[in-house]
Amino acid sequence: MYSDLVAALDIGGTKIAGALVDGSGGICLRARRPTPAGEDAETVMGAVAAVLAELGASPLWGGVTAVGIGSAGPVDASAGTVSPVNIPGWRDFPLVERVRRVTGGLPVELVGDGVAMTAAEHWKGAARGHDNALCMVVSTGVGGGLVLGGRLHTGPTGNAGHIGHISVDLDGDPCPCGSRGCVERIASGPHIARRALENGWRPGPGGDTTAAAVAASARAGDPVATASFERAARALAAGIAATATLVEIDIAVIGGGVAGAGDVLFAPLRRSLRDYATLSFVRRLTVAPALTGGDAGLLGAAAAAAPERRDTAAAYTG
Amino acid sequence: MYSDLVAALDIGGTKIAGALVDGSGGICLRARRPTPAGEDAETVMGAVAAVLAELGASPLWGGVTAVGIGSAGPVDASAGTVSPVNIPGWRDFPLVERVRRVTGGLPVELVGDGVAMTAAEHWKGAARGHDNALCMVVSTGVGGGLVLGGRLHTGPTGNAGHIGHISVDLDGDPCPCGSRGCVERIASGPHIARRALENGWRPGPGGDTTAAAVAASARAGDPVATASFERAARALAAGIAATATLVEIDIAVIGGGVAGAGDVLFAPLRRSLRDYATLSFVRRLTVAPALTGGDAGLLGAAAAAAPERRDTAAAYTG
Repeated sequence: MYSDLVAALDIGGTKIAGALVDGSGGICLRARRPTPAGEDAETVMGAVAAVLAELGASPLWGGVTAVGIGSAGPVDASAGTVSPVNIPGWRDFPLVERVRRVTGGLPVELVGDGVAMTAAEHWKGAARGHDNALCMVVSTGVGGGLVLGGRLHTGPTGNAGHIGHISVDLDGDPCPCGSRGCVERIASGPHIARRALENGWRPGPGGDTTAAAVAASARAGDPVATASFERAARALAAGIAATATLVEIDIAVIGGGVAGAGDVLFAPLRRSLRDYATLSFVRRLTVAPALTGGDAGLLGAAAAAAPERRDTAAAYTG
Repeated sequence: MYSDLVAALDIGGTKIAGALVDGSGGICLRARRPTPAGEDAETVMGAVAAVLAELGASPLWGGVTAVGIGSAGPVDASAGTVSPVNIPGWRDFPLVERVRRVTGGLPVELVGDGVAMTAAEHWKGAARGHDNALCMVVSTGVGGGLVLGGRLHTGPTGNAGHIGHISVDLDGDPCPCGSRGCVERIASGPHIARRALENGWRPGPGGDTTAAAVAASARAGDPVATASFERAARALAAGIAATATLVEIDIAVIGGGVAGAGDVLFAPLRRSLRDYATLSFVRRLTVAPALTGGDAGLLGAAAAAAPERRDTAAAYTG
């Protein structure tokens, strides 16, 4: 019964998650390590290998036929390399080849994490049934992916939908990517927290300075915390509206830790969208929270590694 | 020999151009009126009817089998209506039905002017042979269109590629579209001239305050004129980089009156692109001037009205 499993990896700036996933999207086994994001390339690879070793120790491993990787971007799907903005030690790192070696030669498929999450949401989440959708992860970074005309639009290198690094403030703050005023520079969790702190917000007795703590303060009525989320919402709205204006989407799906703030994020986001999505053909655009949650990266990586599942996913959208 | 002509219309905020176009893209006859852009809907339609009447008076008209329209956007190709930002009298104006009536029931095809120009550049211009391209018109307004995976990407309503109304400055100046900091609000010809005048540039004895006159001053070394073009270039670069980051394009083709400034625009544009197109998968992006010139709208409208010509165009891209 476990004869057609995929080993899925979800690699981000904070954690490296792995799982064995069956053909219906069921997760049979999980493993996870923190990402040593400030360390050198081999140390980061070591954490990936540790996750795979933990999965490989299971008797289920015998049923694994392929490995799917969703990685923080940019990736180069054609070269099999990754250069995640939030993992400086990896630049053109040959992740596909290294994972193939660690797993004894299994076929390995690589997509950007935004594309992976989009595949998951189109297969089993809020974008199901939508032919033109933007799906986003707002977390340590901001990523995304596109469904156009009913199909995943990955682009030649697998990076399409990289909304975190479009500039919505051309004179804005420098971003580690080299540009300025990127959506991620304004709307990611760390930047929501940074801006709140800079404007006088102070954490509770526990000293929690994450975006989740800022969201809790906003829910309790703190105006500085509220303003920091409103600013993030404005940047997200400008980016989503730009995407809709460029390619015509009818839904934007938002997941990731920051989306967990709920109405603290979504209420100002819907208001700001009315300010930026003004042309007739983008006014009907809706925003919805992602449904596949923390498993989006794993489900999408699994879908990417098993093209027949992507075909199944496409069939769902009819 | 003129048995398969298309009547093409190119409708913008400044002029309404018409032509009879043959199957190889040859223009057999032209007509043209200024756009009464500040007038009511029927007055604007009267100018369209006058252009069609002038074409219809030719003996060639007997060979016309279809009408193609490229209009300033937004358009709604599915409803056959247009709502050009720069022609306030037309809101949801039923242009397809009105043109059908005026031309005695010929089939009428409507696309946005940016999509039309893109069809022309992909068929016979600088985007020929490129599978992933953004084509833009920078003129009174700023429009555009996309080729993705070798095919025109029009979107469900025919407006995809509407780069003039994406915000690259989320706190920027209000735009007539209702948003803020749109590419058009910074980079269109009238705004290049406005900004130069506001910063102290003065026209020559002839009193010419167009962007072309600003370009002439910039070529002569005027720093205020140069700065206004640099600002426009920066906004265009941010918008082009955003497009490449979202959908992966390898060339941006720029036409329209402002592109006529040549290096006054293209040199700072190429410099600014290096500032905004920073991720690995967009760094190879190139910029090229459009080749189909003032006839882009007419050629593209003709291609839109004769799908077999679009197939021919697609065949060119192999």
